[in-house]
Amino acid sequence: MAKNKPGIPRGTRDFGPEVMVKRNFIFETIKSVYKKYGFQPLETPSMENLSVLTGKYGDEGDQLLFRILNSGDFLSKSQVEDFEKGYKHLTGNISGKGLRYDLTVPFARYVVMNWGQLNFPFKRYQIQPVWRADRPAKGRYREFYQCDADVVGTDSLICEAEIVAMINEAFEKLGIEDFTIKLNNRKVLEGIAEVIGEQGRQTELCVAIDKLDKIGLEKVNEELIQRGFSQAAVKALAPFLNMSGNNFDKLAILKEQFQNSETGMQGLKELQEVFDYLELMKVNATTVEFDLTLARGLTYYTGAIFEVKVNNVQIGSVSGGGRYDNLTGVFGLDGMSGVGISFGVDRIYDVMEELQLFPSDSSEITTALFINFDRESERYCLPVLQQFRQAGINAELYPDAAKIKKQMNYANKKNIPYVILAGSNEIANRQVTLKNMQSGEQQLLTPEEALEVITK
Amino acid sequence: MAKNKPGIPRGTRDFGPEVMVKRNFIFETIKSVYKKYGFQPLETPSMENLSVLTGKYGDEGDQLLFRILNSGDFLSKSQVEDFEKGYKHLTGNISGKGLRYDLTVPFARYVVMNWGQLNFPFKRYQIQPVWRADRPAKGRYREFYQCDADVVGTDSLICEAEIVAMINEAFEKLGIEDFTIKLNNRKVLEGIAEVIGEQGRQTELCVAIDKLDKIGLEKVNEELIQRGFSQAAVKALAPFLNMSGNNFDKLAILKEQFQNSETGMQGLKELQEVFDYLELMKVNATTVEFDLTLARGLTYYTGAIFEVKVNNVQIGSVSGGGRYDNLTGVFGLDGMSGVGISFGVDRIYDVMEELQLFPSDSSEITTALFINFDRESERYCLPVLQQFRQAGINAELYPDAAKIKKQMNYANKKNIPYVILAGSNEIANRQVTLKNMQSGEQQLLTPEEALEVITK
Repeated sequence: MAKNKPGIPRGTRDFGPEVMVKRNFIFETIKSVYKKYGFQPLETPSMENLSVLTGKYGDEGDQLLFRILNSGDFLSKSQVEDFEKGYKHLTGNISGKGLRYDLTVPFARYVVMNWGQLNFPFKRYQIQPVWRADRPAKGRYREFYQCDADVVGTDSLICEAEIVAMINEAFEKLGIEDFTIKLNNRKVLEGIAEVIGEQGRQTELCVAIDKLDKIGLEKVNEELIQRGFSQAAVKALAPFLNMSGNNFDKLAILKEQFQNSETGMQGLKELQEVFDYLELMKVNATTVEFDLTLARGLTYYTGAIFEVKVNNVQIGSVSGGGRYDNLTGVFGLDGMSGVGISFGVDRIYDVMEELQLFPSDSSEITTALFINFDRESERYCLPVLQQFRQAGINAELYPDAAKIKKQMNYANKKNIPYVILAGSNEIANRQVTLKNMQSGEQQLLTPEEALEVITK
Repeated sequence: MAKNKPGIPRGTRDFGPEVMVKRNFIFETIKSVYKKYGFQPLETPSMENLSVLTGKYGDEGDQLLFRILNSGDFLSKSQVEDFEKGYKHLTGNISGKGLRYDLTVPFARYVVMNWGQLNFPFKRYQIQPVWRADRPAKGRYREFYQCDADVVGTDSLICEAEIVAMINEAFEKLGIEDFTIKLNNRKVLEGIAEVIGEQGRQTELCVAIDKLDKIGLEKVNEELIQRGFSQAAVKALAPFLNMSGNNFDKLAILKEQFQNSETGMQGLKELQEVFDYLELMKVNATTVEFDLTLARGLTYYTGAIFEVKVNNVQIGSVSGGGRYDNLTGVFGLDGMSGVGISFGVDRIYDVMEELQLFPSDSSEITTALFINFDRESERYCLPVLQQFRQAGINAELYPDAAKIKKQMNYANKKNIPYVILAGSNEIANRQVTLKNMQSGEQQLLTPEEALEVITK
């Protein structure tokens, strides 16, 4: 064996066939839902100019960008002084491109570049890897897929309702039954900031509230005090974060509280309208929980915000999104409102493994393996094999006349449900033996009969 | 509009919805064929350690690798002396990873790393982008997809025959009718080197012959002379490169010539066996042309080599592959024979555009757009829309009550085949107007009837 066994970079993964089949099940399911709601595919380059990427994800994000060394003599424009000024300075000289960090900024860049040609409202889905030079850890990778859908160029709240419908449908198709779609609205949080006497400070409020799950109310309050929120404000905030009752109870209570907050009332109106649309569309809204503690941190959201939790599984949110008023402003195109959703495929994978939800059959897998006894059986099987394939069956002949046990092992390891054997007896009678690998049952059949059994 | 309109790196592309739908048609078609023949998906990381990538593609290939700057203070291990020694020296200090250059080396690396767990013969397909810092030109990109299938761990020639079958099936499904699969065998080229008196020089011979298409016989001969081939050898080579007749004629002629070349005879035997398998499998072999001038340059092939040309279209080969005896030797694992095929998706795309072969309908596209007249029509349409979606139809409601012309334009630009209109008359009668966008025909129907028309 290899002396120096090769490896892969930390935080990256190979996806072998077994894992790929499962991942593809998730991707295809989500994709089918996106398409059903009118979203169409987009792909952008893995590399973007650094001018597109930097300054979009905060200082921390800039640190986490993977940068690509310029081709050829990348030092041609650098002097020793540049070297001596340190790596941060040198970076700009030797690297002009980086790997995409998410799918949102490239999407915004695409919309701005193609604005005149696009068909608005523009509904796109995008399923591609992104890269972050994060410290690798359990569940945290340096390369991972994002799975986004966004519609831009409309502020219709039908889009929000359709996002709820898509989430319901995607999880139902994946077999995940017990989940909660947490829904809030940034305008409601803005209203809360107003009524607790900290008008205009909703961003800091969101960043603090966002940690509620992780650090608890006491620490959140401490952080708010540190950020200069008044004791009275922190005290006034608590009932909001502890509010109980169903969605409509909460809306009613807040309506009372927001008498003097126009923005807060607007947020409630939007939420109410989303619930109205859901009812009209007969979409199951029992999965939706209006959650005042949902804040989604330092993001650019301005209206509805979403997050999906799978209940009774210890894992963070598996999906999230929201409405933004100004996706493309950073590239100089203002007033482009939209709303988006993103599914966390790695976490959904882990949930489905834990709950054993992956289907055992798959169109990705070979359905029938023909055993290769010898030259004669090979000659007999090959035309039958092609006949099966022409009927749309994924099938293969073991390419060598290896030991039968080895061939059966091959079928088992590959999860192939049927094995077909043709020794001299079968050949003499123009038959085959069809073996069901799960039940162990064997049948002596004509090739056509075997095909019929398999096709069912 | 934007002051500084953002751009994308040279040699990279955005794929908008219209192009993606067509590209996906190609990918899905090829994937379905790969699966039918028992190949299973693999994905490897975009980044590989440079130790895995360098030295595998020749000096030129090493130059074309995209290298990723180490994260954090990438200069921490470098001194001014390192800087002064120039970029080639510094690279090793500041960059440990690169973007994959092809899918073959990562596949070999994967096989070596997972050798003990794999199910041999291991059949994998892999469809992922690769990156090359090449000078961008028409049809030459810095990021492009490869679409490979390989089987390793067997030297059965059934695999070669199945590759021919897969190529036939893929092109048939794509609608490309007039194509030629050029087939040769490296052992035959080795035999030719022997019989023209230049034994052991088949690599140089292959590199020269490979240019025949581009530079013509005269220049090939000049190159061979320059490389030190004798005048007699060059003269003896000509009849091989000009050989006419059908595949079996050529095999018969060569059999005569190869009386004293064991390797040459072995190559002929292999070719004959592939043709025998094709006949047995009832695979159309009229697409296959035994072509002695097919060499496939400086690659690691040792047996069969393939290349596919679309006839009557000015474009290079659209697919290629071959058998190699030692895929993983470079990583210390010897004796891993295999055979592979790769489809050139960008060229296939261009061919299909030129020949107008893309289907006009697609499951990726929205089938029905509901027009949004006003609040009342919206309320009426939304439950019908959901009913359509539950029946598996990709459908959408225009989210705003915009001008009808704008909404119809939206449907046209998105190639949506049906538009559904419900004004006050339709609503009063619990009907809809179904408009076929291609024929212009309009029908007044119940929602259920409309669904039936669309589903057909």
